[in-house]
Amino acid sequence: MARVYNFSAGPSMLPLEVLKQAQTELLDYNGTGQSVMEMSHRSKEFDDIIKETERLFREVMNIPDNYKVLFLQGGGWTQFSSVPLNLMTKNGKADYIVTGQWAKKAYQEACRYGKARVVASSEDKTFTYIPKVKREDFDLEADYVYYTMNNTIYGTKFNYIPDTGDIPLVSDVSSCFLSEPVDVSKFAVIWGGAQKNVAPAGLTVVIIRDDMIGHAMDITPTLLNYKTQADKDSLFNTPPCWQIYITMLVLRWIKGLGGLDAMKQRNEKKAKLLYDYLDNSKLFKGTVVPEDRSLMNVPFVTGSDELNAKFVAEAKAAGLVNLKGHRTVGGMRASIYNAMPYEGVQALVDFMEKFEKENG
Amino acid sequence: MARVYNFSAGPSMLPLEVLKQAQTELLDYNGTGQSVMEMSHRSKEFDDIIKETERLFREVMNIPDNYKVLFLQGGGWTQFSSVPLNLMTKNGKADYIVTGQWAKKAYQEACRYGKARVVASSEDKTFTYIPKVKREDFDLEADYVYYTMNNTIYGTKFNYIPDTGDIPLVSDVSSCFLSEPVDVSKFAVIWGGAQKNVAPAGLTVVIIRDDMIGHAMDITPTLLNYKTQADKDSLFNTPPCWQIYITMLVLRWIKGLGGLDAMKQRNEKKAKLLYDYLDNSKLFKGTVVPEDRSLMNVPFVTGSDELNAKFVAEAKAAGLVNLKGHRTVGGMRASIYNAMPYEGVQALVDFMEKFEKENG
Repeated sequence: MARVYNFSAGPSMLPLEVLKQAQTELLDYNGTGQSVMEMSHRSKEFDDIIKETERLFREVMNIPDNYKVLFLQGGGWTQFSSVPLNLMTKNGKADYIVTGQWAKKAYQEACRYGKARVVASSEDKTFTYIPKVKREDFDLEADYVYYTMNNTIYGTKFNYIPDTGDIPLVSDVSSCFLSEPVDVSKFAVIWGGAQKNVAPAGLTVVIIRDDMIGHAMDITPTLLNYKTQADKDSLFNTPPCWQIYITMLVLRWIKGLGGLDAMKQRNEKKAKLLYDYLDNSKLFKGTVVPEDRSLMNVPFVTGSDELNAKFVAEAKAAGLVNLKGHRTVGGMRASIYNAMPYEGVQALVDFMEKFEKENG
Repeated sequence: MARVYNFSAGPSMLPLEVLKQAQTELLDYNGTGQSVMEMSHRSKEFDDIIKETERLFREVMNIPDNYKVLFLQGGGWTQFSSVPLNLMTKNGKADYIVTGQWAKKAYQEACRYGKARVVASSEDKTFTYIPKVKREDFDLEADYVYYTMNNTIYGTKFNYIPDTGDIPLVSDVSSCFLSEPVDVSKFAVIWGGAQKNVAPAGLTVVIIRDDMIGHAMDITPTLLNYKTQADKDSLFNTPPCWQIYITMLVLRWIKGLGGLDAMKQRNEKKAKLLYDYLDNSKLFKGTVVPEDRSLMNVPFVTGSDELNAKFVAEAKAAGLVNLKGHRTVGGMRASIYNAMPYEGVQALVDFMEKFEKENG
């Protein structure tokens, strides 16, 4: 069948240009006579790939020189453990801002390794907003403050960077990675799973300030100690080479389009199209307060479970797939990451208008 | 350029048929209008892939019903930690057979979590042989016995399964995975990295007997606890979907060729060609005692560093790549995994004969 518009929350769409290039060179990368999938991670050919990927990451995100860029395995759940194991080692305390399930799970995992504290939460209103936190809310003895920048399930985003003073700030940026500029220098650690905006599932990128490395607890599994991979430029063991290669292609694509400023413009234009429709619809409505809306994940409902199910099924038949909301929230969710073209959002809005006429 | 014969120790060659199918359906898997790289891991389409992969694994390896098959991230180093964290929990003791660098590293990691003991080692002769161990060598209080079945760097293989009596047996089979039949019922845990015989780097398959699950130490990171993924059929978090898909294609390929009995025949035939040549060559010689030779990794030397370097360079120019030995051993190493065709080994032997004539 023709390519569909895939609104999956992750893994999710990749740029068509990237997929086509990967397809073209799948049997023979750059005249090597090998697929990237077959390449020794110690070869010159792969070394060129991982070095270019890191260089592009630094360039596109404007990452300062005193930060390492690590290419790791294990997904968000590994970071939920690695963050406290590596960082909760001075006073054994950390402050968590809980704005969704993933932040809550990160907090719960941290509780296993020290005194984690919920400093603010939006669970009282099913995580539909972002709490405002001020510098004086934080424990001056906290080894770090942790938050999730964009909340995939609930469609909220921090539109400010919490002011933590001298306390190191850690953020999970999985679902807004590379979607707009971010001031890396404000963070001690920024990490993100690749499977939304960067590459296929199986790669986690950790951007970490040098002084955060080397203080892990004794119980830390060797591979979860950030120092292990930082000392070896992510080649301590075999990395997920294919995912790193796709990341390189995606970063080239982003750079070619004008970098993160251009991505932000594109993403704002796409999100505006959908939010404007939702704000004017009689049938559909968004679930998030306007000031905390995500550019990446847009949940919406009709008010009727039956109509929701009908919408999801009919949309799928029309080539607009994976619009069902997260199982814990219900309704619908359109994830419109970097690789979703404007035409895809337009097609969704057109379909919603038609559905509204037929079912309004 | 034309496809080369890639003798890399891993990541390494994949079957050409598998690569071609992945290429064909890269933009549109099975009429879904999506790449497998873009597919939600919660979708029906991906569920079919992971279920078929597990079913084929069980069929091809004849895995008993009281074992789980887990698809994990993190590579061998994660297992070096996970094995003691999950299993060294009754008496806090374990016996390790050290037949190479990877076994040694696994042992060293286990020492961080309990009383690990080297029960036998071949380090005295640079790991060029496999020690014979008997049931009475093991500590009856050991929570498990651990060994590496095939030693990638040194080209040795256990041609017997250690008799540990009632002590659970754990084996790292990374570099001989799916290369010949193995009696899974003799093991408590068999695990292997995918990047040699199974799939691109980024997937580790753990085959674990049910009674080994659920006893992890309190300090175990959630994702390193085998119970976490066992309870969720490896879908606790986002798995490395692309690697699982390639595994499915590789397992179909193996099954189509006649399963592991057929793979063993193919591998023996390929290895015999190369070992017979080495045993009769005046210039090249193998480094491993005949009875412990691996079918997968064949190290050899000329006795001159200069000639070794010349051989590796000229072989590369002739389309026979990655023949340089591991940095800790020197000389040459030909890794001839499942996907290396007989013609590739023939081409190598032909080239060695020519080189021997010119340099003998």
